[in-house]
Amino acid sequence: MDFVEVVRKRRMVRSYTDEPVDPAVVRRALEHAHRAPSAGFSQGWAFLLLDDAGAVARFWAATTPAGQGDDAWSQGMRTAPVLVVPLSCKRAYLDRYAEPDKGWTDRDEARWAAPYWDIDTGMAALLILLTAVDDELGACFFGVPPQRVGALRAEFGIPDDHHPIGAITLGHPAPGGVRGSSRRRRCPLDDVVHHGRW
Amino acid sequence: MDFVEVVRKRRMVRSYTDEPVDPAVVRRALEHAHRAPSAGFSQGWAFLLLDDAGAVARFWAATTPAGQGDDAWSQGMRTAPVLVVPLSCKRAYLDRYAEPDKGWTDRDEARWAAPYWDIDTGMAALLILLTAVDDELGACFFGVPPQRVGALRAEFGIPDDHHPIGAITLGHPAPGGVRGSSRRRRCPLDDVVHHGRW
Repeated sequence: MDFVEVVRKRRMVRSYTDEPVDPAVVRRALEHAHRAPSAGFSQGWAFLLLDDAGAVARFWAATTPAGQGDDAWSQGMRTAPVLVVPLSCKRAYLDRYAEPDKGWTDRDEARWAAPYWDIDTGMAALLILLTAVDDELGACFFGVPPQRVGALRAEFGIPDDHHPIGAITLGHPAPGGVRGSSRRRRCPLDDVVHHGRW
Repeated sequence: MDFVEVVRKRRMVRSYTDEPVDPAVVRRALEHAHRAPSAGFSQGWAFLLLDDAGAVARFWAATTPAGQGDDAWSQGMRTAPVLVVPLSCKRAYLDRYAEPDKGWTDRDEARWAAPYWDIDTGMAALLILLTAVDDELGACFFGVPPQRVGALRAEFGIPDDHHPIGAITLGHPAPGGVRGSSRRRRCPLDDVVHHGRW
Protein backbone atom coordinates (compact mmCIF):
# COMPACT_ATOMS: atom_id res chain seq x y z
CA MET A 1 0.00 0.00 0.00
CA ASP A 2 1.21 3.51 -0.63
CA PHE A 3 2.95 5.02 2.40
CA VAL A 4 0.64 8.03 2.59
CA GLU A 5 -2.43 5.80 2.46
CA VAL A 6 -1.05 3.70 5.34
CA VAL A 7 -0.47 6.81 7.46
CA ARG A 8 -3.92 8.21 6.72
CA LYS A 9 -5.79 4.93 7.25
CA ARG A 10 -4.26 4.10 10.62
CA ARG A 11 -6.82 3.94 13.41
CA MET A 12 -6.88 2.09 16.72
CA VAL A 13 -9.06 -1.02 16.28
CA ARG A 14 -10.60 -2.27 19.53
CA SER A 15 -12.65 -5.30 18.38
CA TYR A 16 -11.75 -8.19 16.07
CA THR A 17 -13.30 -11.10 14.14
CA ASP A 18 -12.32 -14.70 14.87
CA GLU A 19 -10.38 -14.99 11.61
CA PRO A 20 -6.81 -16.08 12.36
CA VAL A 21 -3.86 -13.83 11.55
CA ASP A 22 -1.30 -15.11 9.06
CA PRO A 23 1.93 -15.72 11.05
CA ALA A 24 3.93 -14.37 8.09
CA VAL A 25 2.23 -11.00 8.55
CA VAL A 26 3.11 -10.94 12.25
CA ARG A 27 6.68 -11.81 11.37
CA ARG A 28 6.83 -8.96 8.86
CA ALA A 29 5.47 -6.53 11.46
CA LEU A 30 8.20 -7.61 13.88
CA GLU A 31 10.86 -7.29 11.17
CA HIS A 32 9.68 -3.74 10.55
CA ALA A 33 9.65 -2.97 14.28
CA HIS A 34 13.26 -4.12 14.46
CA ARG A 35 14.04 -1.57 11.71
CA ALA A 36 13.08 1.36 13.92
CA PRO A 37 15.88 3.81 14.62
CA SER A 38 17.61 3.60 17.98
CA ALA A 39 20.08 5.91 19.69
CA GLY A 40 23.60 4.70 18.93
CA PHE A 41 21.91 1.75 17.19
CA SER A 42 21.44 0.35 20.71
CA GLN A 43 18.46 -1.79 19.64
CA GLY A 44 17.46 -1.91 23.31
CA TRP A 45 14.06 -3.44 22.74
CA ALA A 46 12.34 -6.80 22.77
CA PHE A 47 8.96 -8.12 21.67
CA LEU A 48 6.93 -10.72 23.51
CA LEU A 49 4.71 -12.42 20.91
CA LEU A 50 1.57 -14.15 22.17
CA ASP A 51 -0.36 -15.82 19.37
CA ASP A 52 -2.30 -18.70 20.83
CA ALA A 53 -5.54 -18.47 22.74
CA GLY A 54 -4.03 -19.75 25.98
CA ALA A 55 -1.22 -17.23 26.04
CA VAL A 56 -3.56 -14.39 25.12
CA ALA A 57 -5.93 -15.37 27.95
CA ARG A 58 -3.04 -15.47 30.40
CA PHE A 59 -2.00 -11.98 29.27
CA TRP A 60 -5.43 -10.58 30.08
CA ALA A 61 -5.64 -12.46 33.37
CA ALA A 62 -2.27 -11.04 34.42
CA THR A 63 -2.87 -7.45 33.35
CA THR A 64 -6.53 -6.80 34.21
CA PRO A 65 -7.00 -5.10 37.60
CA ALA A 66 -9.30 -6.89 40.05
CA GLY A 67 -12.98 -6.11 39.46
CA GLN A 68 -12.36 -4.90 35.91
CA GLY A 69 -12.56 -6.64 32.53
CA ASP A 70 -16.34 -6.60 32.02
CA ASP A 71 -16.42 -3.26 30.20
CA ALA A 72 -16.88 -2.89 26.44
CA TRP A 73 -13.22 -2.00 25.90
CA SER A 74 -12.00 -5.20 27.57
CA GLN A 75 -14.56 -7.39 25.87
CA GLY A 76 -13.61 -6.02 22.47
CA MET A 77 -9.87 -6.11 23.00
CA ARG A 78 -9.99 -9.71 24.23
CA THR A 79 -11.20 -10.81 20.80
CA ALA A 80 -7.76 -10.12 19.32
CA PRO A 81 -6.02 -13.40 18.41
CA VAL A 82 -2.50 -11.94 18.64
CA LEU A 83 -0.71 -9.72 21.15
CA VAL A 84 2.73 -8.17 20.93
CA VAL A 85 4.27 -6.63 24.05
CA PRO A 86 7.07 -4.17 23.12
CA LEU A 87 9.62 -3.89 25.91
CA SER A 88 12.33 -1.29 26.37
CA CYS A 89 15.73 -2.04 27.89
CA LYS A 90 17.42 0.99 29.41
CA ARG A 91 20.37 -1.16 30.44
CA ALA A 92 21.20 -1.84 26.76
CA TYR A 93 21.41 1.93 26.13
CA LEU A 94 23.63 2.56 29.14
CA ASP A 95 25.85 -0.35 28.03
CA ARG A 96 26.02 0.96 24.45
CA TYR A 97 26.94 4.50 25.50
CA ALA A 98 29.62 3.23 27.86
CA GLU A 99 31.49 1.86 24.81
CA PRO A 100 34.67 3.70 23.72
CA ASP A 101 33.10 5.65 20.80
CA LYS A 102 30.55 7.22 23.22
CA GLY A 103 32.50 7.09 26.46
CA TRP A 104 29.71 7.60 29.00
CA THR A 105 31.34 5.12 31.32
CA ASP A 106 29.72 6.66 34.41
CA ARG A 107 26.33 5.44 33.06
CA ASP A 108 24.84 8.67 34.43
CA GLU A 109 21.21 8.93 33.33
CA ALA A 110 21.40 12.73 33.59
CA ARG A 111 23.31 12.61 30.30
CA TRP A 112 20.06 11.67 28.53
CA ALA A 113 17.68 14.50 27.61
CA ALA A 114 14.90 12.01 26.90
CA PRO A 115 14.25 8.30 27.60
CA TYR A 116 15.33 7.00 24.20
CA TRP A 117 14.84 3.41 25.35
CA ASP A 118 11.10 4.10 25.63
CA ILE A 119 10.96 6.46 22.63
CA ASP A 120 12.75 4.09 20.26
CA THR A 121 10.64 1.15 21.42
CA GLY A 122 7.58 3.33 20.79
CA MET A 123 8.82 3.94 17.24
CA ALA A 124 9.12 0.17 16.84
CA ALA A 125 5.54 -0.18 18.12
CA LEU A 126 4.34 2.36 15.56
CA LEU A 127 5.92 0.32 12.77
CA ILE A 128 3.85 -2.67 13.94
CA LEU A 129 0.68 -0.53 13.84
CA LEU A 130 1.51 0.75 10.35
CA THR A 131 2.38 -2.72 9.05
CA ALA A 132 -1.03 -3.91 10.27
CA VAL A 133 -2.69 -1.24 8.12
CA ASP A 134 -0.51 -2.22 5.16
CA ASP A 135 -1.78 -5.80 5.53
CA GLU A 136 -5.44 -4.83 6.04
CA LEU A 137 -5.30 -5.85 9.70
CA GLY A 138 -6.39 -3.89 12.73
CA ALA A 139 -4.22 -3.07 15.72
CA CYS A 140 -4.38 -1.14 18.98
CA PHE A 141 -1.58 0.10 21.22
CA PHE A 142 -2.54 0.41 24.87
CA GLY A 143 -0.96 0.69 28.29
CA VAL A 144 -0.48 -2.00 30.91
CA PRO A 145 -1.57 -0.75 34.36
CA PRO A 146 1.58 -0.17 36.43
CA GLN A 147 0.23 -2.27 39.30
CA ARG A 148 -0.09 -5.28 36.95
CA VAL A 149 3.38 -5.13 35.40
CA GLY A 150 4.76 -7.42 38.11
CA ALA A 151 2.12 -10.06 37.38
CA LEU A 152 2.86 -9.78 33.65
CA ARG A 153 6.58 -10.29 34.33
CA ALA A 154 5.90 -13.33 36.48
CA GLU A 155 3.50 -14.92 33.99
CA PHE A 156 5.84 -14.73 31.01
CA GLY A 157 9.29 -14.68 32.59
CA ILE A 158 10.11 -11.10 31.60
CA PRO A 159 13.49 -10.09 33.07
CA ASP A 160 13.75 -7.08 35.35
CA ASP A 161 15.81 -5.07 32.84
CA HIS A 162 13.01 -5.11 30.26
CA HIS A 163 10.01 -2.84 30.76
CA PRO A 164 6.71 -3.23 28.86
CA ILE A 165 5.88 0.17 27.34
CA GLY A 166 2.39 -1.16 26.57
CA ALA A 167 0.92 -3.88 24.39
CA ILE A 168 -0.50 -4.21 20.89
CA THR A 169 -3.51 -6.23 19.82
CA LEU A 170 -3.54 -7.54 16.25
CA GLY A 171 -6.36 -9.13 14.26
CA HIS A 172 -8.93 -8.68 11.56
CA PRO A 173 -11.11 -5.68 12.44
CA ALA A 174 -14.68 -6.40 13.49
CA PRO A 175 -17.38 -4.16 11.99
CA GLY A 176 -17.46 -1.10 14.21
CA GLY A 177 -14.14 -1.98 15.82
CA VAL A 178 -12.86 1.59 15.52
CA ARG A 179 -13.99 3.42 18.64
CA GLY A 180 -12.49 5.03 21.70
CA SER A 181 -11.34 8.60 21.92
CA SER A 182 -12.35 9.33 18.32
CA ARG A 183 -15.10 11.62 19.57
CA ARG A 184 -12.25 13.97 20.39
CA ARG A 185 -11.15 16.00 17.42
CA ARG A 186 -7.68 16.39 16.05
CA CYS A 187 -6.52 19.89 16.92
CA PRO A 188 -5.54 22.14 13.99
CA LEU A 189 -1.99 21.55 12.79
CA ASP A 190 -1.14 25.20 13.23
CA ASP A 191 -1.89 24.92 16.94
CA VAL A 192 1.07 22.56 17.34
CA VAL A 193 3.51 23.89 14.72
CA HIS A 194 5.61 26.89 15.78
CA HIS A 195 7.36 28.42 12.80
CA GLY A 196 10.66 30.13 13.53
CA ARG A 197 9.94 30.56 17.23
CA TRP A 198 7.18 30.01 19.75
CA MET B 1 6.31 5.08 -2.46
CA ASP B 2 5.25 1.68 -1.23
CA PHE B 3 5.12 1.49 2.57
CA VAL B 4 7.53 -1.45 2.79
CA GLU B 5 10.04 0.34 0.58
CA VAL B 6 9.86 3.42 2.83
CA VAL B 7 10.52 1.31 5.94
CA ARG B 8 13.42 -0.54 4.33
CA LYS B 9 15.05 2.55 2.81
CA ARG B 10 15.06 4.64 5.99
CA ARG B 11 18.55 5.56 7.16
CA MET B 12 19.87 8.43 9.23
CA VAL B 13 21.39 11.00 6.84
CA ARG B 14 24.06 13.18 8.44
CA SER B 15 25.15 15.44 5.54
CA TYR B 16 23.12 17.41 2.99
CA THR B 17 23.44 19.30 -0.29
CA ASP B 18 22.59 23.00 -0.53
CA GLU B 19 19.42 22.28 -2.52
CA PRO B 20 16.43 23.85 -0.75
CA VAL B 21 13.62 21.71 0.64
CA ASP B 22 10.14 22.23 -0.77
CA PRO B 23 8.04 23.78 2.05
CA ALA B 24 5.08 21.64 0.91
CA VAL B 25 7.07 18.52 1.74
CA VAL B 26 7.88 19.83 5.20
CA ARG B 27 4.23 20.62 5.72
CA ARG B 28 3.25 17.10 4.69
CA ALA B 29 5.80 15.65 7.11
CA LEU B 30 4.28 17.73 9.93
CA GLU B 31 0.75 16.70 8.94
CA HIS B 32 1.84 13.06 9.15
CA ALA B 33 3.52 13.65 12.50
CA HIS B 34 0.26 15.09 13.81
CA ARG B 35 -1.42 11.80 12.75
CA ALA B 36 0.66 9.78 15.21
CA PRO B 37 -1.37 7.98 17.84
CA SER B 38 -1.50 9.51 21.33
CA ALA B 39 -2.81 8.14 24.62
CA GLY B 40 -6.40 9.32 25.07
CA PHE B 41 -5.86 11.29 21.85
CA SER B 42 -4.06 13.80 24.08
CA GLN B 43 -2.00 15.18 21.17
CA GLY B 44 0.44 16.49 23.75
CA TRP B 45 3.14 17.41 21.29
CA ALA B 46 4.43 20.43 19.39
CA PHE B 47 6.90 20.99 16.56
CA LEU B 48 9.31 23.90 16.30
CA LEU B 49 10.04 24.39 12.60
CA LEU B 50 13.26 26.18 11.68
CA ASP B 51 13.66 26.61 7.92
CA ASP B 52 15.81 29.64 7.32
CA ALA B 53 19.58 29.83 7.60
CA GLY B 54 19.47 32.29 10.49
CA ALA B 55 17.18 30.21 12.65
CA VAL B 56 19.13 27.04 11.86
CA ALA B 57 22.39 28.74 12.84
CA ARG B 58 20.83 29.95 16.09
CA PHE B 59 19.70 26.38 16.83
CA TRP B 60 23.26 25.07 16.51
CA ALA B 61 24.70 27.97 18.50
CA ALA B 62 22.24 27.29 21.32
CA THR B 63 22.61 23.52 21.43
CA THR B 64 26.32 22.91 20.82
CA PRO B 65 28.33 22.47 24.03
CA ALA B 66 31.30 24.80 24.45
CA GLY B 67 34.40 23.58 22.65
CA GLN B 68 32.44 21.24 20.38
CA GLY B 69 31.04 21.66 16.88
CA ASP B 70 34.20 21.13 14.85
CA ASP B 71 33.78 17.40 14.47
CA ALA B 72 32.62 15.68 11.27
CA TRP B 73 29.16 14.96 12.71
CA SER B 74 28.53 18.63 13.50
CA GLN B 75 29.92 19.87 10.20
CA GLY B 76 27.72 17.47 8.28
CA MET B 77 24.56 18.05 10.29
CA ARG B 78 24.90 21.83 10.01
CA THR B 79 24.46 21.55 6.24
CA ALA B 80 20.77 20.67 6.74
CA PRO B 81 18.54 23.55 5.57
CA VAL B 82 15.59 22.56 7.78
CA LEU B 83 15.24 21.52 11.42
CA VAL B 84 12.17 20.28 13.25
CA VAL B 85 12.25 20.07 17.05
CA PRO B 86 9.56 17.68 18.33
CA LEU B 87 8.48 18.61 21.86
CA SER B 88 6.45 16.55 24.32
CA CYS B 89 3.99 18.09 26.76
CA LYS B 90 3.37 15.93 29.84
CA ARG B 91 0.98 18.53 31.20
CA ALA B 92 -1.40 17.95 28.27
CA TYR B 93 -1.55 14.23 29.14
CA LEU B 94 -2.20 14.89 32.82
CA ASP B 95 -4.92 17.38 31.82
CA ARG B 96 -6.49 14.93 29.38
CA TYR B 97 -6.59 12.06 31.89
CA ALA B 98 -8.10 14.31 34.56
CA GLU B 99 -11.18 14.66 32.35
CA PRO B 100 -14.35 12.82 33.46
CA ASP B 101 -14.04 9.85 31.05
CA LYS B 102 -10.60 9.02 32.50
CA GLY B 103 -10.97 10.45 36.00
CA TRP B 104 -7.32 10.63 37.09
CA THR B 105 -7.98 13.90 38.85
CA ASP B 106 -5.08 13.41 41.28
CA ARG B 107 -2.73 13.81 38.27
CA ASP B 108 -0.52 11.16 39.90
CA GLU B 109 2.27 10.22 37.51
CA ALA B 110 2.54 6.80 39.15
CA ARG B 111 -0.59 5.90 37.18
CA TRP B 112 1.48 5.89 34.00
CA ALA B 113 3.44 2.72 33.18
CA ALA B 114 5.44 4.57 30.55
CA PRO B 115 6.06 8.22 29.53
CA TYR B 116 3.51 8.32 26.73
CA TRP B 117 4.15 12.03 26.21
CA ASP B 118 7.68 11.17 25.07
CA ILE B 119 6.73 7.91 23.35
CA ASP B 120 3.89 9.45 21.31
CA THR B 121 6.05 12.41 20.34
CA GLY B 122 8.70 9.91 19.27
CA MET B 123 6.13 8.20 17.06
CA ALA B 124 5.37 11.60 15.52
CA ALA B 125 9.10 12.08 14.93
CA LEU B 126 9.30 8.71 13.18
CA LEU B 127 6.51 9.76 10.83
CA ILE B 128 8.63 12.78 9.85
CA LEU B 129 11.61 10.50 9.17
CA LEU B 130 9.47 8.14 7.07
CA THR B 131 7.85 10.98 5.14
CA ALA B 132 11.33 12.25 4.27
CA VAL B 133 12.13 8.87 2.70
CA ASP B 134 8.81 8.92 0.83
CA ASP B 135 9.82 12.29 -0.65
CA GLU B 136 13.41 11.27 -1.46
CA LEU B 137 14.77 13.51 1.28
CA GLY B 138 17.21 12.64 4.02
CA ALA B 139 16.63 13.11 7.73
CA CYS B 140 18.34 12.44 11.04
CA PHE B 141 16.86 12.30 14.54
CA PHE B 142 19.32 13.23 17.28
CA GLY B 143 19.38 14.31 20.92
CA VAL B 144 19.86 17.78 22.34
CA PRO B 145 22.42 17.73 25.18
CA PRO B 146 20.52 18.18 28.48
CA GLN B 147 22.79 21.03 29.55
CA ARG B 148 21.82 22.97 26.38
CA VAL B 149 18.05 22.60 26.64
CA GLY B 150 17.79 25.80 28.68
CA ALA B 151 19.62 27.80 26.00
CA LEU B 152 17.38 26.27 23.32
CA ARG B 153 14.29 27.29 25.31
CA ALA B 154 15.57 30.83 25.72
CA GLU B 155 16.55 31.22 22.07
CA PHE B 156 13.18 30.20 20.65
CA GLY B 157 10.75 31.00 23.48
CA ILE B 158 9.87 27.37 24.26
CA PRO B 159 7.56 27.23 27.29
CA ASP B 160 8.53 25.24 30.36
CA ASP B 161 5.77 22.67 29.86
CA HIS B 162 7.18 21.56 26.50
CA HIS B 163 10.28 19.37 26.43
CA PRO B 164 12.39 18.78 23.30
CA ILE B 165 12.78 15.01 22.88
CA GLY B 166 15.47 15.71 20.27
CA ALA B 167 15.65 17.36 16.86
CA ILE B 168 15.38 16.30 13.23
CA THR B 169 17.49 17.56 10.32
CA LEU B 170 15.86 17.53 6.88
CA GLY B 171 17.40 18.07 3.47
CA HIS B 172 18.60 16.49 0.27
CA PRO B 173 21.19 13.83 1.12
CA ALA B 174 24.79 14.58 0.21
CA PRO B 175 26.75 11.75 -1.40
CA GLY B 176 28.06 9.66 1.48
CA GLY B 177 25.66 11.29 3.94
CA VAL B 178 24.69 7.98 5.49
CA ARG B 179 27.19 7.26 8.24
CA GLY B 180 27.25 6.97 11.98
CA SER B 181 26.61 3.81 13.93
CA SER B 182 26.06 1.81 10.75
CA ARG B 183 29.25 -0.11 11.43
CA ARG B 184 27.24 -1.78 14.17
CA ARG B 185 25.16 -4.64 12.90
CA ARG B 186 21.46 -5.19 13.37
CA CYS B 187 21.09 -8.06 15.82
CA PRO B 188 19.14 -11.11 14.60
CA LEU B 189 15.39 -10.69 14.92
CA ASP B 190 15.12 -13.89 16.93
CA ASP B 191 17.36 -12.36 19.60
CA VAL B 192 14.67 -9.77 20.37
CA VAL B 193 11.45 -11.74 19.71
CA HIS B 194 10.27 -13.98 22.54
CA HIS B 195 7.55 -16.33 21.34
CA GLY B 196 5.02 -17.37 23.99
CA ARG B 197 7.30 -16.53 26.90
CA TRP B 198 10.83 -15.39 27.64
